[in-house]
Amino acid sequence: MTQIRIALAQVNTTVGDLSGNADLVLARTRAAAEAGAHVVVFPEMALTGYPVEDLALRTSFTEASQQHLRRLAARLDEAGCGHVAAVVGYLDADPVGTRDSAAILAGGTVFARQHKHHLPNYGVFDEQRWFKPGRALEIVRINGLEVGMVICEDIWQEGGPVAALGQAGVDLVVAPNASPYERNKDDVRLPLVRRRAAEAGAPLVYVNQVGGQDDLVFDGDSMVVAEDGTLLARAPQFVEHLMVVDLDLPGGAASTDADVVDDFTVTRRVLSETPVAAAPPVTAAGVATASVAEPLSTEAELWAALVLGLRDYTRKNGFASVVLGLSGGIDSAVCAALAVDALGADAVYGVSMPSVYSSEHSRSDAADLAERTGLHYQEQPIADMVAAFVGQLGLTGLAEENVQARCRGMTLMGLSNQDGHLVLATGNKTELAVGYSTIYGDAVGGFAPIKDVPKTLVWELARWRNTEADKRGEVAPIPDASITKPPSAELRPGQLDADSLPDYTLLDDVLDDYIEGDAGYADLLAAGFEPALVDRVLRMVDRAEYKRRQYPPGTKVSTKAFGRDRRLPMTNAWREGSGG
Amino acid sequence: MTQIRIALAQVNTTVGDLSGNADLVLARTRAAAEAGAHVVVFPEMALTGYPVEDLALRTSFTEASQQHLRRLAARLDEAGCGHVAAVVGYLDADPVGTRDSAAILAGGTVFARQHKHHLPNYGVFDEQRWFKPGRALEIVRINGLEVGMVICEDIWQEGGPVAALGQAGVDLVVAPNASPYERNKDDVRLPLVRRRAAEAGAPLVYVNQVGGQDDLVFDGDSMVVAEDGTLLARAPQFVEHLMVVDLDLPGGAASTDADVVDDFTVTRRVLSETPVAAAPPVTAAGVATASVAEPLSTEAELWAALVLGLRDYTRKNGFASVVLGLSGGIDSAVCAALAVDALGADAVYGVSMPSVYSSEHSRSDAADLAERTGLHYQEQPIADMVAAFVGQLGLTGLAEENVQARCRGMTLMGLSNQDGHLVLATGNKTELAVGYSTIYGDAVGGFAPIKDVPKTLVWELARWRNTEADKRGEVAPIPDASITKPPSAELRPGQLDADSLPDYTLLDDVLDDYIEGDAGYADLLAAGFEPALVDRVLRMVDRAEYKRRQYPPGTKVSTKAFGRDRRLPMTNAWREGSGG
Repeated sequence: MTQIRIALAQVNTTVGDLSGNADLVLARTRAAAEAGAHVVVFPEMALTGYPVEDLALRTSFTEASQQHLRRLAARLDEAGCGHVAAVVGYLDADPVGTRDSAAILAGGTVFARQHKHHLPNYGVFDEQRWFKPGRALEIVRINGLEVGMVICEDIWQEGGPVAALGQAGVDLVVAPNASPYERNKDDVRLPLVRRRAAEAGAPLVYVNQVGGQDDLVFDGDSMVVAEDGTLLARAPQFVEHLMVVDLDLPGGAASTDADVVDDFTVTRRVLSETPVAAAPPVTAAGVATASVAEPLSTEAELWAALVLGLRDYTRKNGFASVVLGLSGGIDSAVCAALAVDALGADAVYGVSMPSVYSSEHSRSDAADLAERTGLHYQEQPIADMVAAFVGQLGLTGLAEENVQARCRGMTLMGLSNQDGHLVLATGNKTELAVGYSTIYGDAVGGFAPIKDVPKTLVWELARWRNTEADKRGEVAPIPDASITKPPSAELRPGQLDADSLPDYTLLDDVLDDYIEGDAGYADLLAAGFEPALVDRVLRMVDRAEYKRRQYPPGTKVSTKAFGRDRRLPMTNAWREGSGG
Repeated sequence: MTQIRIALAQVNTTVGDLSGNADLVLARTRAAAEAGAHVVVFPEMALTGYPVEDLALRTSFTEASQQHLRRLAARLDEAGCGHVAAVVGYLDADPVGTRDSAAILAGGTVFARQHKHHLPNYGVFDEQRWFKPGRALEIVRINGLEVGMVICEDIWQEGGPVAALGQAGVDLVVAPNASPYERNKDDVRLPLVRRRAAEAGAPLVYVNQVGGQDDLVFDGDSMVVAEDGTLLARAPQFVEHLMVVDLDLPGGAASTDADVVDDFTVTRRVLSETPVAAAPPVTAAGVATASVAEPLSTEAELWAALVLGLRDYTRKNGFASVVLGLSGGIDSAVCAALAVDALGADAVYGVSMPSVYSSEHSRSDAADLAERTGLHYQEQPIADMVAAFVGQLGLTGLAEENVQARCRGMTLMGLSNQDGHLVLATGNKTELAVGYSTIYGDAVGGFAPIKDVPKTLVWELARWRNTEADKRGEVAPIPDASITKPPSAELRPGQLDADSLPDYTLLDDVLDDYIEGDAGYADLLAAGFEPALVDRVLRMVDRAEYKRRQYPPGTKVSTKAFGRDRRLPMTNAWREGSGG
């Protein structure tokens, strides 16, 4: 048996920050080397961050990526890490086109390069726009073991490059990933990695990035799975993590010297022939030993995703603080609690903006939230501002309702411009779906933390967060009243959401089928929904497309979020059920 | 020689309006039949409209497209057009996936189906997300002539399916298209169609759709080009047009019976063996005879594109009127003139919204514009609204400037909510590029007519439009003062654009290279721009990405418009020139 020590570097990179990301790779490789690792694996495109989107089409950027990679190889060697094989994702380009690649950096050089084969072009992914697929497989002998590489989507393909590696013969497969979080995706990942390890006939080292990037958040969840499906190690989600795992491998897997396996050109390179003696146990600072992290509960996972998405959008865009309107309702309360968890109470500014239609509890619940969380709180009544518009323009009805929401939006933007806060829009996915929000009003913001969370789930999260606080002996952040009172926009006397919308439980059920399931009219009737309800909900959703286009970004947590995940025309005469 | 009469049906469809589009096909086929046409060719996906975007992923929609196609075939026959071969683009689906297809409808049936081979996945196109490519070619014998079909992107491929048709042997190629307008694209099209006709060894009938769809506008420009490159007919741009063209063809081109040519499976079907006697000259109403339309001047073409894009967004989304702010400046004046040309003066509402910093000429120039164009005009001073915000929130500096722009945006939205107008945002591409606009202020709107027009081109268009009016003996719509005075946002005393921005001519040059050319720092220096200027402009552009994400749609007229044409991350640490 040959022992090899692999470090999984689950890092939080920033798109476009080549120098910063290279520094991160250097620091983690150093720590891994101190811990005696022979190989350290970074996520997909770790050097550039992921996704770089159309930056991949700019020659200056691809060249910078290539230069930084070479420089990084040299720096690693200078730092005394030349003996460690560092698997680093980066953006490459050759005469065929731009490539999503991973390199093995060792001995001061770029020793091997592996291009990604399967380029996802669905959901949030446009990789066939950005990259050309690889057709070759590089197998590198490290300490006498045959190591194959595949990248992200490659492991989602049955009978793809992993199967080819299995046929060619490898002792180990490493897989850099940038796989965005979706609810329950971690439940899919482990069985998937198991299937691929079996297909490869070798352990598979899965390393995923962690952190927020615009509307995406990456959860990490890096792992090592043995050929027989045993989960050998699994990193915690939503945090950076560097973990070393010792593998005892039989070696000698190079079953074929064929140049072509399953249409893939196979090249074998030798980095090091000789097995290295078993290293002493790990003691390096900042390096964890192999363990299987306890899975998070459904709510804990979701909350962590929302916190990290919000924190990273704020931080990576250079904001030190956020401001949001506090209506006393559940949405703004949950956004405030998320912001406090993400940034600390001192970086969160809440503003209560009562109008003449605001209830007493809208203020008292907002004030209670502020006291519970410790965020900065102020009250800015909007009556005078509203009066200026309504009086001069003679607005009535919906126009008057919208002015109130817009005066609040303007107030938040004014405070943002004055004090440099990032404005948070507090709308949830249900509102955004049916257009129950005011464009340039409550839709104002640089980021929308719960944009992809349906209303019913907002309530669940609120209850869960409070219970967690109770468990820890802390003050529950969200006032009970905000959770239990009937939701209202309070834009006219006695208004309740229930006047304009179906019951939220029912509404969220229809929306889940229509938005995430792409169900048609007949499917929805077959699912047992009343035709009138289906008609009403679908018309609202279809008509609100233009509002969604101008809505701020927010963290995707569902299988289909509004935005690049669901691209529908605004000008669209198709109406489900009409037959067209 | 065999004569065949082909009708080119350059129609303006609506995405998702299957019934309406089918009616359009029926009406045009009827007119073509009256004019003695043997074949009538409609644009790509004429039945569904183009692009349907993610509607292509919804089973209910693909099924409706297939049903409507079959029903249309029957209706054509019932209407006495069964003897005409109608080439109709539609959305198909089979076990492989969803298809961008064209059918030949004849004798009440769907006689043949041709799938698109090449699926563009660049620029504004995501066709590899939506469709699977075809691998087969259908050649249909009509009146004894071998007719091949290809769809849009297929003709942009050297050595693609058109070359295969040439090898297989065809007498004629028909090509349905949905090719969005870009400045000077028509100059590229004719040489392209010529190359393909030569490759096919047969005349090529190119039919493109016309009309606006969200941020795209299609210009038509349908044409017939002979094998030797002779332009036999060309339809005018930006209008619906039905034109019949008589072709005398030698026939007998079926040079091979091979089942496979160049990797394409070839199937030949016989619709009609016998040449039909030469028909009498065309006299049917609404049908034009073959002619080559006079090309439009650069400015006329651009103006027509902007007018049609604006008209169709307004009309297809159910609006009867538009409202916009009139500042007395060039941008709002050009938008107003476009709106009047698109919708008529009676459907256009202009609002002058002076603040305490507004110059006298800002009002008088706006009033002059209103008088020249005949649009509805009102003045709504914003001083009281601004005072309400500034006073209560204690805003100063940029925060105070922005409040003015936002009070204007709120005023327009109030009038829109009250009276049902579509709000137009009047910003130009230069402003949008450098972020010289106020989010939720002047950026407010449902549509932005000159979003893709750089400032220097806005001036050119204004001059051109006035000159055209002079030529026709009409009142020039745009006040001279709006064209000649130095541009100013008038948000503080004596403010001029030149205080904050480089000279517009220079700025637009840099932007053209950076945005449309995707030039890097070194390229820009090599082009002769000063490093300090490049630094300054690029920082402004990169920092404004978040504003562009929330900006309304507007007609794409350049090779790279902001929006789905240029997909860049907001969270993006890459800075050209820094080396990363």
